[in-house]
Amino acid sequence: MNEITIVKIGGKIINEDSLLRSFLKEFSAIPGMKILVHGGGRAATKMLNELGMKIKMIDGRRITDAATLDVCVGQYAGVVNKRIVGILQSMDVDAMGLSGADGQIILSNKRPASPIDYGYVGDITHIDSKKLIGLITLGFVPVFCAVTADTNGQLLNTNADTIASALASELANSMKVDLRYCFEFDGVLSDLVKMEVIDVIKGDQFQELIDHGVLQGGVIPKVHNAIVAKESGVSSVSICGISNLINLQNATKIKES
Amino acid sequence: MNEITIVKIGGKIINEDSLLRSFLKEFSAIPGMKILVHGGGRAATKMLNELGMKIKMIDGRRITDAATLDVCVGQYAGVVNKRIVGILQSMDVDAMGLSGADGQIILSNKRPASPIDYGYVGDITHIDSKKLIGLITLGFVPVFCAVTADTNGQLLNTNADTIASALASELANSMKVDLRYCFEFDGVLSDLVKMEVIDVIKGDQFQELIDHGVLQGGVIPKVHNAIVAKESGVSSVSICGISNLINLQNATKIKES
Repeated sequence: MNEITIVKIGGKIINEDSLLRSFLKEFSAIPGMKILVHGGGRAATKMLNELGMKIKMIDGRRITDAATLDVCVGQYAGVVNKRIVGILQSMDVDAMGLSGADGQIILSNKRPASPIDYGYVGDITHIDSKKLIGLITLGFVPVFCAVTADTNGQLLNTNADTIASALASELANSMKVDLRYCFEFDGVLSDLVKMEVIDVIKGDQFQELIDHGVLQGGVIPKVHNAIVAKESGVSSVSICGISNLINLQNATKIKES
Repeated sequence: MNEITIVKIGGKIINEDSLLRSFLKEFSAIPGMKILVHGGGRAATKMLNELGMKIKMIDGRRITDAATLDVCVGQYAGVVNKRIVGILQSMDVDAMGLSGADGQIILSNKRPASPIDYGYVGDITHIDSKKLIGLITLGFVPVFCAVTADTNGQLLNTNADTIASALASELANSMKVDLRYCFEFDGVLSDLVKMEVIDVIKGDQFQELIDHGVLQGGVIPKVHNAIVAKESGVSSVSICGISNLINLQNATKIKES
């Protein structure tokens, strides 16, 4: 059975060029078949500010109207994606930057407008693993940004953690998949003062960790996506940082309930 | 010998959504293997204006500084490229949007700063036809934007007419290539009042047509790129419009000297 490593990098690593390069250097050293999924970092927010566009939020989540979508597509699929592809190519990784629309590899539907209308936000409906494996078999390393499209060609802003989870779950049907969520800490922290990393999170501990205030903010959907992937058959799921991306020492391992 | 059609669309068609869709409908009807190369239209200029950035020009050519490059990459590789890919997918064309950096399919060098420093502008040095044919053989229709990169991963603004010409010339080594430059008229006009199209342009007529004021402005590099392609072995090279994209009726045919 073929093995593949899927790595997701978060926004904060993308925001700083030196951090991004450090990360990509580690990523380039991962042997074998691999896929990178990246968020957009502050690129879109920065551009929206520069354009004097109002950023609409509900419960901490951005509302993507048509003008905001254009900015997100430009930053995620354009500026950030191609910057990453260029750097990886210079590190001898044969990166190919993709949105979900390309080759219709990741299809999504616009999220229903009720109860909250988030605008042009996509929920993944289908992943074409055959085409994706075709690209990987040619030797390419796909680099996905957080943009997908529906069957009418409508582009949709799509959560990068979810894209990584969905790709991993789909490929787990035919491959041994190792999914690694890489962010600014070595793993999920149990204690923000001592900076201690939780060694293992099991699916059935999720709600408890939220209730006790251990999981907060953006870590909650990340851990949720990681658990979904693990419970759908992904061999190995971890949450890690740049320095332990390769050896996963002191990373948080996600286990089934 | 395999046959392939390469179509380049110019800026003015991209600027209007209804024109773009009309063009893509015609493009979708071209049978067999095909590649699309697109310019950016006014997207970058519009965004530069919205950002209040100064557009630097020398002799009618834009100077691409680092900030301008970011805007171009966002618009060309992001907004415009993914919009085209989405629409083509909805028309059952298995489009895959690419910059030259992706898979390092089109390599370029930064243009020398002397005599004029155009900034981050690339001149094509190499096309990896093997990887390109690999993608096409998988069934994908590559859609190239006007961005390439050097071996250090530096992204570079690159003329879309030249990209189309270079792709056609390279693929002509192993395939029968039909190159079509599609713009706002049915062909190169000999007379702007009567709107008469020149039937044939031979390589050795190029300078004469400039001297007589027939070729002006943006048509000059387009015809030049078309002639370069024809003289490097491309089977068929034409300059046409949307309505005659498929049958090439009344289009301008480029012939060898």
